Amino acid sequence: MEWRHKDLLGLAELTKEEIELILDTASSFKEVSTREIKKVPALRGKSVVNLFYEPSTRTRVSFEIAAKRLSCDVINIIADTSSVRKGESLVDTGKNLEALKIDIIVLRHNSSGAAHLLARNVGVSVINAGDGWHEHPTQALLDIFTLKEKFGKIEGLNVTIVGDIAHSRVARSNIWGLTKLGAKVCVCAPKSLLPIEIERLGVEVFNDLDEALRDTDCVNVLRMQLERDEKTIFPSSLDYFKQYGITMERLKKLKRNILIMHPGPLNRGVEISSEVADGENSVILEQVTNGIAVRMAVLYLVTQARETIKNEAHH
Amino acid sequence: MEWRHKDLLGLAELTKEEIELILDTASSFKEVSTREIKKVPALRGKSVVNLFYEPSTRTRVSFEIAAKRLSCDVINIIADTSSVRKGESLVDTGKNLEALKIDIIVLRHNSSGAAHLLARNVGVSVINAGDGWHEHPTQALLDIFTLKEKFGKIEGLNVTIVGDIAHSRVARSNIWGLTKLGAKVCVCAPKSLLPIEIERLGVEVFNDLDEALRDTDCVNVLRMQLERDEKTIFPSSLDYFKQYGITMERLKKLKRNILIMHPGPLNRGVEISSEVADGENSVILEQVTNGIAVRMAVLYLVTQARETIKNEAHH
Amino acid sequence: MEWRHKDLLGLAELTKEEIELILDTASSFKEVSTREIKKVPALRGKSVVNLFYEPSTRTRVSFEIAAKRLSCDVINIIADTSSVRKGESLVDTGKNLEALKIDIIVLRHNSSGAAHLLARNVGVSVINAGDGWHEHPTQALLDIFTLKEKFGKIEGLNVTIVGDIAHSRVARSNIWGLTKLGAKVCVCAPKSLLPIEIERLGVEVFNDLDEALRDTDCVNVLRMQLERDEKTIFPSSLDYFKQYGITMERLKKLKRNILIMHPGPLNRGVEISSEVADGENSVILEQVTNGIAVRMAVLYLVTQARETIKNEAHH
Repeated sequence: MEWRHKDLLGLAELTKEEIELILDTASSFKEVSTREIKKVPALRGKSVVNLFYEPSTRTRVSFEIAAKRLSCDVINIIADTSSVRKGESLVDTGKNLEALKIDIIVLRHNSSGAAHLLARNVGVSVINAGDGWHEHPTQALLDIFTLKEKFGKIEGLNVTIVGDIAHSRVARSNIWGLTKLGAKVCVCAPKSLLPIEIERLGVEVFNDLDEALRDTDCVNVLRMQLERDEKTIFPSSLDYFKQYGITMERLKKLKRNILIMHPGPLNRGVEISSEVADGENSVILEQVTNGIAVRMAVLYLVTQARETIKNEAHH
Repeated sequence: MEWRHKDLLGLAELTKEEIELILDTASSFKEVSTREIKKVPALRGKSVVNLFYEPSTRTRVSFEIAAKRLSCDVINIIADTSSVRKGESLVDTGKNLEALKIDIIVLRHNSSGAAHLLARNVGVSVINAGDGWHEHPTQALLDIFTLKEKFGKIEGLNVTIVGDIAHSRVARSNIWGLTKLGAKVCVCAPKSLLPIEIERLGVEVFNDLDEALRDTDCVNVLRMQLERDEKTIFPSSLDYFKQYGITMERLKKLKRNILIMHPGPLNRGVEISSEVADGENSVILEQVTNGIAVRMAVLYLVTQARETIKNEAHH
Repeated sequence: MEWRHKDLLGLAELTKEEIELILDTASSFKEVSTREIKKVPALRGKSVVNLFYEPSTRTRVSFEIAAKRLSCDVINIIADTSSVRKGESLVDTGKNLEALKIDIIVLRHNSSGAAHLLARNVGVSVINAGDGWHEHPTQALLDIFTLKEKFGKIEGLNVTIVGDIAHSRVARSNIWGLTKLGAKVCVCAPKSLLPIEIERLGVEVFNDLDEALRDTDCVNVLRMQLERDEKTIFPSSLDYFKQYGITMERLKKLKRNILIMHPGPLNRGVEISSEVADGENSVILEQVTNGIAVRMAVLYLVTQARETIKNEAHH
């Protein structure tokens, strides 16, 4: 099995085998971050551009560290209000970066489909680091990696995603990836935070949290995007916490080895209690650690693929 | 021929031979960016500070990549509103950077003459990355490099610069460089965008675009700085496009091998049509590629010169 | 003598011997910045995060250069208004960085005690780069390093700190460090800028500048934080300059080899005249140079200590 794509745009378009290849590659890279000298020369002389149209320190820093552990140069372009004043289109920016002979663009963009658009228009690799409400594949991959590390397999697991499913690229990517690998996925949210026809993605839908959690092996707790909405979709944070917050009280009724995941950053006391977030079922910080391994794997695989494609084109 | 200046401030003060030395050095560096490992150790252990008082992602990124391909460390100082609150003078900032034992300051500043002021006051190398309406020498050098690559020579070429000549450091640096190398330079703009006595720089002045383009080998299309002016100097973008926009219709009447240049970022449909920008006469993205080679050459030459000067001082 | 702390939080908690160890280590690193290739492999494969909740280009750049001269990777997190919108707590941010397997957090924070809070909650090293009005240990260490370089010793020296003592972490760290090493410290400020019970730190307090400076070997001139206060604490900059500004006229009455220090950036004509700042008694730029050596030493020592602690835990 070989990785054949110059880009990583979403889990929707990957096969089970391709997802497993990323996970296996990540496994072999995980050890690098435990060394005294946390660096391998795999991508020396290559360069990655973090092209972020939305602020996201966490994802940017994770990719930056992953790239540097592969000995890759990193250039950050944070398109805040001041620097995008000149208003070049995404495709033009991409073509310019390609002309600079960089190797990979890690793109965070507020529009769904932005990564696909860019990837179609440039020869460099594009890694989708979150596009609108669409996909955030490396986040889902690190979630799945963490699950697999804990349970040894994905097939047959019950995973419940709780929170604002409608506006969550993390949920969407997890659903694609987990169902392909044979997990059963449930989503749980108030109706206002559920997208229509979500069942079509092969998930079971719940409005009641206790029902949703009954047999679950892992709860993936989504962040309430408090900063996103001026008018609240939900009555209040406190109401949300009562009905959908993951608390110790709820946890006690569930499987003893249940895993608690959260993509971060946490709203403690909104979607999760501190006791649960810091408790022994929580693998939230392990997710962060695994994010480096997964991103190293993706950076590595797309580079290999691009070079294979280039070499084949020369024959 | 040896490069003897610790700085690169403008093309006005360079001889023909010095400009040619930069172009030849850039030629030899261009190949580095086509390697699998795009890195040479030429400036290992040196550091460049990108000191930008105006936002310019393009130029900053180009210098950052060029420096990293020379194995040079890069520190970015983007003096936006928040970080310049403490209001240190440019010279004091420069002296502090010198005390930090950095090697090169790449300066972008909104005041004409800022790079000269800084260079006179510090021992480190200063590269002018654009000062007010004055000069932007590396942009002109990459334009000239691209011209020479395409035509084999500069002498005897007809180059027409179209657009807001009055407020363009790119125009000014191109005029200095091209005329020194023996090209004939025409400028074309509405009267309100022409500086007074521009003829003194040895260029021919046109207000009518079709007249200006008649025998030209290359059109360098300037960006309309739409974001710069609150009140428009010109009636409207649409009017500008009609009278001064480079369109396919106009292109068809010109030399078949005419080159279309633009320093970017493009205002499609303002100073240039998309068809032309993306067409086969356009070398806009090649300019971007050549920018890396030219900036590597400049970073390298000023470092060599500074070390020669230092060694001579010791004898 | 061996360094045993994973963190550097302040000079209040260090012994005389520990401070001297940092100074000696800095001495041995100072030479690196004079080499042609300014780089040693001491921290290769490690990573430092500059986590800055207050803008401070000077300190950030100094740490960034110091880390890079040790071959350490540097990731900048500048928590401006846009990127902290998501509002994660300092401890959560720290735990996330730890999960990313970074080695050192250099923290600048507007709350006194922030560095201590963070250090208690993470296993990575924390270097305090300024916390509220509390401490700024590397600034004081570079001041003391400069003093020792000039006078050969600290014991018995008279040092006077002039300016806004009440709001100065630089003053506080200097007082702790200097008194431990046996210097006599005087502080001089208008009453409104003196903290209550400052005498308890073992300093002599003056309101009159000329009296304060009489026998001093070094004046450390604090920056008036003009940008910090909307309403001025002191009548006006001009009044301040008259009463507390360090001028040539004042300097002439003092010891001939008196040193003038300033942590920068300078307010010329407010707390110091240009003639003095640029004069032969000024060591202001040498302080900047020494800052690199001191920060290299601190980055190196905390890393060594953390590895010693880790190895001991394994036995």
